[in-house]
Amino acid sequence: MRKLLFLVFCLPLLAQAQVNQDSINIKKMVDEIMTNGKAYDLLRELTKKIGGRLAGSPQQQNAAVWGKRNMEAFHPDKLYLQPCKTPSWQRGGKDFAAIVSVDGKVQNEPLAALALGNSLSSNGMVEAELLAVANFDELEKRKDEVKGKIVYFNSEFNPTRIRTFMAYGETGVYRRTGPSRAAKYGAVGMMMHSLSTAPDNAPHTGAMEYDQAQPKIPAVALGPDDAKALYLLAKKSKVRVQMQTYGYFLPDADENNVVAELVGSEFPEEIITIGGHLDSWDVNEGAHDDGAGVVQTMEVLRTMKELNYHPKRTIRFVLFANEENGDRGGLKYAELAKLNKEKHILALESDAGGFTPRAIGISTSAAQFKKFQQWTSYLQPYGTEIIAGGGGSDIGPLTSYDKTIIMAGLIPDSQRYFDLHHAKTDVFENVNKRELLLGAANIAAIIYLVDQYGVKP
Amino acid sequence: MRKLLFLVFCLPLLAQAQVNQDSINIKKMVDEIMTNGKAYDLLRELTKKIGGRLAGSPQQQNAAVWGKRNMEAFHPDKLYLQPCKTPSWQRGGKDFAAIVSVDGKVQNEPLAALALGNSLSSNGMVEAELLAVANFDELEKRKDEVKGKIVYFNSEFNPTRIRTFMAYGETGVYRRTGPSRAAKYGAVGMMMHSLSTAPDNAPHTGAMEYDQAQPKIPAVALGPDDAKALYLLAKKSKVRVQMQTYGYFLPDADENNVVAELVGSEFPEEIITIGGHLDSWDVNEGAHDDGAGVVQTMEVLRTMKELNYHPKRTIRFVLFANEENGDRGGLKYAELAKLNKEKHILALESDAGGFTPRAIGISTSAAQFKKFQQWTSYLQPYGTEIIAGGGGSDIGPLTSYDKTIIMAGLIPDSQRYFDLHHAKTDVFENVNKRELLLGAANIAAIIYLVDQYGVKP
Repeated sequence: MRKLLFLVFCLPLLAQAQVNQDSINIKKMVDEIMTNGKAYDLLRELTKKIGGRLAGSPQQQNAAVWGKRNMEAFHPDKLYLQPCKTPSWQRGGKDFAAIVSVDGKVQNEPLAALALGNSLSSNGMVEAELLAVANFDELEKRKDEVKGKIVYFNSEFNPTRIRTFMAYGETGVYRRTGPSRAAKYGAVGMMMHSLSTAPDNAPHTGAMEYDQAQPKIPAVALGPDDAKALYLLAKKSKVRVQMQTYGYFLPDADENNVVAELVGSEFPEEIITIGGHLDSWDVNEGAHDDGAGVVQTMEVLRTMKELNYHPKRTIRFVLFANEENGDRGGLKYAELAKLNKEKHILALESDAGGFTPRAIGISTSAAQFKKFQQWTSYLQPYGTEIIAGGGGSDIGPLTSYDKTIIMAGLIPDSQRYFDLHHAKTDVFENVNKRELLLGAANIAAIIYLVDQYGVKP
Repeated sequence: MRKLLFLVFCLPLLAQAQVNQDSINIKKMVDEIMTNGKAYDLLRELTKKIGGRLAGSPQQQNAAVWGKRNMEAFHPDKLYLQPCKTPSWQRGGKDFAAIVSVDGKVQNEPLAALALGNSLSSNGMVEAELLAVANFDELEKRKDEVKGKIVYFNSEFNPTRIRTFMAYGETGVYRRTGPSRAAKYGAVGMMMHSLSTAPDNAPHTGAMEYDQAQPKIPAVALGPDDAKALYLLAKKSKVRVQMQTYGYFLPDADENNVVAELVGSEFPEEIITIGGHLDSWDVNEGAHDDGAGVVQTMEVLRTMKELNYHPKRTIRFVLFANEENGDRGGLKYAELAKLNKEKHILALESDAGGFTPRAIGISTSAAQFKKFQQWTSYLQPYGTEIIAGGGGSDIGPLTSYDKTIIMAGLIPDSQRYFDLHHAKTDVFENVNKRELLLGAANIAAIIYLVDQYGVKP
């Protein structure tokens, strides 16, 4: 690509531009973010100086201190912590899995493996014959074969799902419930294909939850290459495998949501929340998940202060303490909102990665959605549209006390997210500066409009 | 991000789906590409086994052989070469630039630099005082100061251009014409800020062209970090710099366009072309520019053959020999089209990177464009829309003999393109498999529709 196609490439941009005071104000914010944005530098600090931030870890606590200190420097009207208890799951050691033998022939071939979050120690090495199944249907059909075996679920993504979250929705259930589904029929361990789109062998961890009625068997996700090879092998041969995990829980930890506020000048009681979560898994830097959401939230605060924007409504910038393995940050935020009889009108979360934004997703009534859709032309110059359906795990609990609160989410392009989600590859180097900033810019734009015009249809 | 937002994320997808035989046929192609696509593996071969492919290099010749052999394996109806002459510019050595002194104090600080493509040797080290200007306006105002100096243009991208090709359009002129503009007033060398969006220090090469009436001074692009620092320094201090380049031309080389064809069953005389260019700059693997376009072109051929698709019209899959520093491949293709009195109806190029596709751009009359717009619903499930304005350097020459030929282009997301365009960072590792395949899928979809329904309004 050498020639000047710029006229060609910017035609749609020119066509969509609609100029009025709102479009001018939004452009000011977007320009400030794209030109002077600090989100990328903040993300470098968070990922490189603090690192992985599993709930209950010193790093998670450092991240909250870091978040508070950095938001303080932007001079919000209010800045406070919301103490909350979080789980403190410990990986406990270096997870291990291997093929011991194939049709009786010794192999001793290690497999790339990571214990699932919240899973417990295998209490020493577990060795057993492998029962590899495509899915729960096959498990049910072959339930009589399960006893004493290690069950493998071939929970590979469907590559034809263009929005990869759809594939995650289809296979995520194996990570969350697979261990107990297998344990129910006597399995002594569980392996699964990582919930991954990557053409590599990095295993992906993530939360599981034991059914308290079943034995708590160890559970690992295998790297995609190893998982595919193992599944093919198990289809034609008798495979024995080993696994060892070390997971355990410490007592719940004391952590904090970090909340900054710009107090509304006209309707201070109407609260708009934007946020992301500080915690991450232990095996990576939590750069996209959810360092991106954290620094985008901080960037919007910085930009509003830098441009001397005085909101009509109260805007809260929330760095949630814990999402990955407990949602404790979001639950505490909702609990306090209820306790304090707060009037929340909209909450927006960025927790789908720092990739090029494609849409702002809005979950609301048809009448209210129409109002949002009218704002489409303000966002189009910045690459997004307004679509139905949005939210996030941290803000979700708010709706349990008031179902009228509008849930919104930044929806970035999803092609790369599950390459690195919960894997060691979710590091700063895999975040693109412009994509990250453009996400913050689109959040700023929609929050500006909600602040100016409220959400009443 | 842990929870199952998949329902939320796929709502718009479901809403847009329009089911008929065409949508079914398109989905089959897309599914084949996303599931069994070979484009990523082909790109690995092209970039890792062959590498950088500057026109005239052995690698470029190997790439054509490789392209022919691999397309042969897909069994097109026809497969042939179009011999053409290409320039054979040689970098000739390791380009060098440095700050010699600041306000008389010796520094000897090297600068990350790459000679511009087509620029000539400095014939030894050139040392002079630096004249740093923001742009051509400032050059004109200060033309009396230029003589005997090395001119630096601060051709930094405007970060507020959301479509980065727009910023490239604005600053590309410094790379192409900057050396001769400076030489006109007596400059002995030219330096410029790389045409880059990256927060790094990798210099970006790319084609320049001397004004034959002016002295042919050496010209380099500096890494963004060094360029910014140098510009700041030069604003307050007297800076002396050095530069040495080694560029020269060998006689034109013998190379080839590689053309595969599926012959139309109903309208074989109506030709649809899709393509990308085999050549790249010497300093990288040409992964996005334009390995991506090459392997996407091959992927569409593979898929049509795999699914036993027999087109109504003739579809040409063209790997162009030379774009970067001469457009000789595209010129030869157009020359032969004219010579053979071919009837081309549409040509589509992929040469803006293997990133998530955002649109199919179409350059045509208003009446014809309406026809294309009616196909929007077929593309939306795969993430793209049909917008006005598209084309490419390789296919552009076709319009010089027939202005009615519709020019089309795959328009991927542009945020990351100029991070690596013409820099050492344009390597296989920076291409995402799903993004690359999704580009091929969208090309297949639009080409299917053009094949089925032609282009008559």
